[in-house]
Amino acid sequence: MAQSNEDSLFIARIFDEALTKGKSYPDLQDLCKQAGPRLSGSAAAQRAVDLTESKMIGYGFDSVYRQEVMVPHWERGTESPLVVTLSESDKPIRPMPICALGGSVAGDINGKVIEVMGWNELSKLDPKAIEGKIVFFNRPMDARMVYTFGAYGTCVDQRVFGAIWAASKGAKGIIVRSMNLRIDDYPHTGSMAYSDSVTKIPAVAVSTLGAEELSALLKADSNLIVHYSITPKNHPDALSHNVIGQLTGTKYPNQYIAVGGHLDAWDLGEGAHDDGAGCIQSIEVLRLLKTLDYTPRYSLRSVMFMNEENGLKGAKEYARYCDSLGQKHLVGIEADRGAFAPRGFFVQANPEQLKHIQKWLPLFEEYGIYVIKGGGAGADVGPLQRLDENVVLIGFVPDSQRYFDYHHAANDVFSSVNRRELELGAAALASLVYLLDKYGV
Amino acid sequence: MAQSNEDSLFIARIFDEALTKGKSYPDLQDLCKQAGPRLSGSAAAQRAVDLTESKMIGYGFDSVYRQEVMVPHWERGTESPLVVTLSESDKPIRPMPICALGGSVAGDINGKVIEVMGWNELSKLDPKAIEGKIVFFNRPMDARMVYTFGAYGTCVDQRVFGAIWAASKGAKGIIVRSMNLRIDDYPHTGSMAYSDSVTKIPAVAVSTLGAEELSALLKADSNLIVHYSITPKNHPDALSHNVIGQLTGTKYPNQYIAVGGHLDAWDLGEGAHDDGAGCIQSIEVLRLLKTLDYTPRYSLRSVMFMNEENGLKGAKEYARYCDSLGQKHLVGIEADRGAFAPRGFFVQANPEQLKHIQKWLPLFEEYGIYVIKGGGAGADVGPLQRLDENVVLIGFVPDSQRYFDYHHAANDVFSSVNRRELELGAAALASLVYLLDKYGV
Repeated sequence: MAQSNEDSLFIARIFDEALTKGKSYPDLQDLCKQAGPRLSGSAAAQRAVDLTESKMIGYGFDSVYRQEVMVPHWERGTESPLVVTLSESDKPIRPMPICALGGSVAGDINGKVIEVMGWNELSKLDPKAIEGKIVFFNRPMDARMVYTFGAYGTCVDQRVFGAIWAASKGAKGIIVRSMNLRIDDYPHTGSMAYSDSVTKIPAVAVSTLGAEELSALLKADSNLIVHYSITPKNHPDALSHNVIGQLTGTKYPNQYIAVGGHLDAWDLGEGAHDDGAGCIQSIEVLRLLKTLDYTPRYSLRSVMFMNEENGLKGAKEYARYCDSLGQKHLVGIEADRGAFAPRGFFVQANPEQLKHIQKWLPLFEEYGIYVIKGGGAGADVGPLQRLDENVVLIGFVPDSQRYFDYHHAANDVFSSVNRRELELGAAALASLVYLLDKYGV
Repeated sequence: MAQSNEDSLFIARIFDEALTKGKSYPDLQDLCKQAGPRLSGSAAAQRAVDLTESKMIGYGFDSVYRQEVMVPHWERGTESPLVVTLSESDKPIRPMPICALGGSVAGDINGKVIEVMGWNELSKLDPKAIEGKIVFFNRPMDARMVYTFGAYGTCVDQRVFGAIWAASKGAKGIIVRSMNLRIDDYPHTGSMAYSDSVTKIPAVAVSTLGAEELSALLKADSNLIVHYSITPKNHPDALSHNVIGQLTGTKYPNQYIAVGGHLDAWDLGEGAHDDGAGCIQSIEVLRLLKTLDYTPRYSLRSVMFMNEENGLKGAKEYARYCDSLGQKHLVGIEADRGAFAPRGFFVQANPEQLKHIQKWLPLFEEYGIYVIKGGGAGADVGPLQRLDENVVLIGFVPDSQRYFDYHHAANDVFSSVNRRELELGAAALASLVYLLDKYGV
């Protein structure tokens, strides 16, 4: 098919450009090193706004602008290690690194520990056994799940709801095993919820190694005492921004294909995989198409969503704002699963649209992409479809094996990113945007 | 299909066992840390023989034995950095790390440098312009090739034949750009050839970063002088061993399905990806099948080939020895492309056999494997097919993006291996062996 050959040649040009003259790797380095850890409301988050805006202006996109959004502003403060004192021994136990969960209240906690594997187990325990104690949620991610986000999904309830569950039983604090498939010593943070109907108790994560150690110690001595102290602070909401770059369409200028990632990142690392990569790849998508002199029919947007990690305020505001202006999205694409070698795309659309997109799969196979199937696209594009059910959502899916080694931890830094994997992802996204723009949905 | 469902269930058990109770990761750690850098003929190589033999005995394989083979014994000695002196400036240039290519003669070399992109360019130059100088081969790997072994294949001639080409033009030494797609400061070694008809000149590799720097310096000052000094030594051939473990077949005990990697490794790192991973995965294949109480029809072998890197003596001896005893191989499988997430298998067989094996692809897809196609299996299983054209050869193909970051360099160490990627590879190989054993070829 002549048409398909033309597509195959253009996609080859996209990949060649990304792999030989790509900007995603140095751009990600700038974001990680110049902006740095950039939780919503922080000065670093605003440096990231400035930096990505100026990158997109520098690349000569047709329009680049920021969009105001009020975001939560939580600050970590200081964290003691977790100190374990055995009931009948003065053998010192190594202090274990911990981190506050995102949104936790401050506290200085000392007490006995009850280890559970989740709500199922906790709900059956007598509140008298829990009262005044610290609940230790230690259900590990299920290593059998080949797609690791699946394993995360079956575990993360402990981190999100653990403090509510434990407080409802009278506990005074919680310790959660980090969401990590590897046994190592990095505590992983992440968002958590409180309920107004129970006490807000201080919540921390311990590394997987620490969790294994604590569990073994508890088996030997159920009366051991742990101590931890954290001093996070909730500030008033802060003014922040989404950042949007655009190549304006020649045929449907007021219909949009948006590709984006989230600009905020947890504060322990540099947000290299989560989600500096997705932001920078989204910018690279437009740069690649522009550099190759592609003339878009629809308006193509690169969107840096602010505040995915603890509020989703940017995503909601972007959808609301577009809706209020009558800007119609054809597609919203999200890149928020790390800078790993591309494997496929998950599509939220009706069956005909999915079939239409799946027809392009042969064009991707030589780049290692063999999967286009129904599946969740991502949190930041979600509000677009909630406001307009006709919007097609697509999530970019790279290889998932290493993602949770870095996710929300201090080792999610630029040096953990492989240049080629990052570039292949950007090229895969640009190729998809090209096909969507050319053939619609 | 009931049969296919049975296969799918058994393969799921293989993956579950590998991912939850797998031994490949701790075993690879032992090989990397207890044996260590293990070039053929070294004491470390013999420690690796002992260690893998004792692992397989410990796992209770039906028979475990070693096979004598004489191997080359080259020792690196010491290496100076590459020192550049500009002709008209006393500005110091940073000394660049280098390494001797494997097999190089010793030498202390001082001289002017001619940069070329390969034999094509060198062959056209007047020998008078080369005589007494050092040839710098600086053709980079082609980043556009998505399968990175392809890029390696179009470049490695500089390392293998560079010293012959340069000496034939009267050069007194060569510097080769490391075979690495990343710009970093690790020099990568690897095998090289000499010819008896020209002088043997000392050959070194410079890191990709060093190569970029040297090239830039030469553009500014073609009369600059470089110095390097290396003291490698060729010792007499040494006695070494292949190591073989076997689960004996119940139906065809004297027909074999062998899966193997090479036990020797270049001396700069720990040979974690190249090819500790392949060896340990091969052992894990048999351990997984034994642990799951699988009763093989054919005899299944895990083969640690000695001396792939600089001689292939182990592979040749294994094939010769089996042939001399009338041991017939059904299949030889090689794992020698690193411990990365599995992507597929390359098959050297007739079209009917390839089609037969390709029918199993749906069983592999949920584990991220979408490719079974014709292609080179690997160096160590090659001699089996040369002695008996009916032997089917299969190469295990993991994701190739990161392989040349580590290949033959000091950073090919245990910590560069991701546990899950290693385990998924072992499970993929075990699943393939199971299907081959059950359905033949």
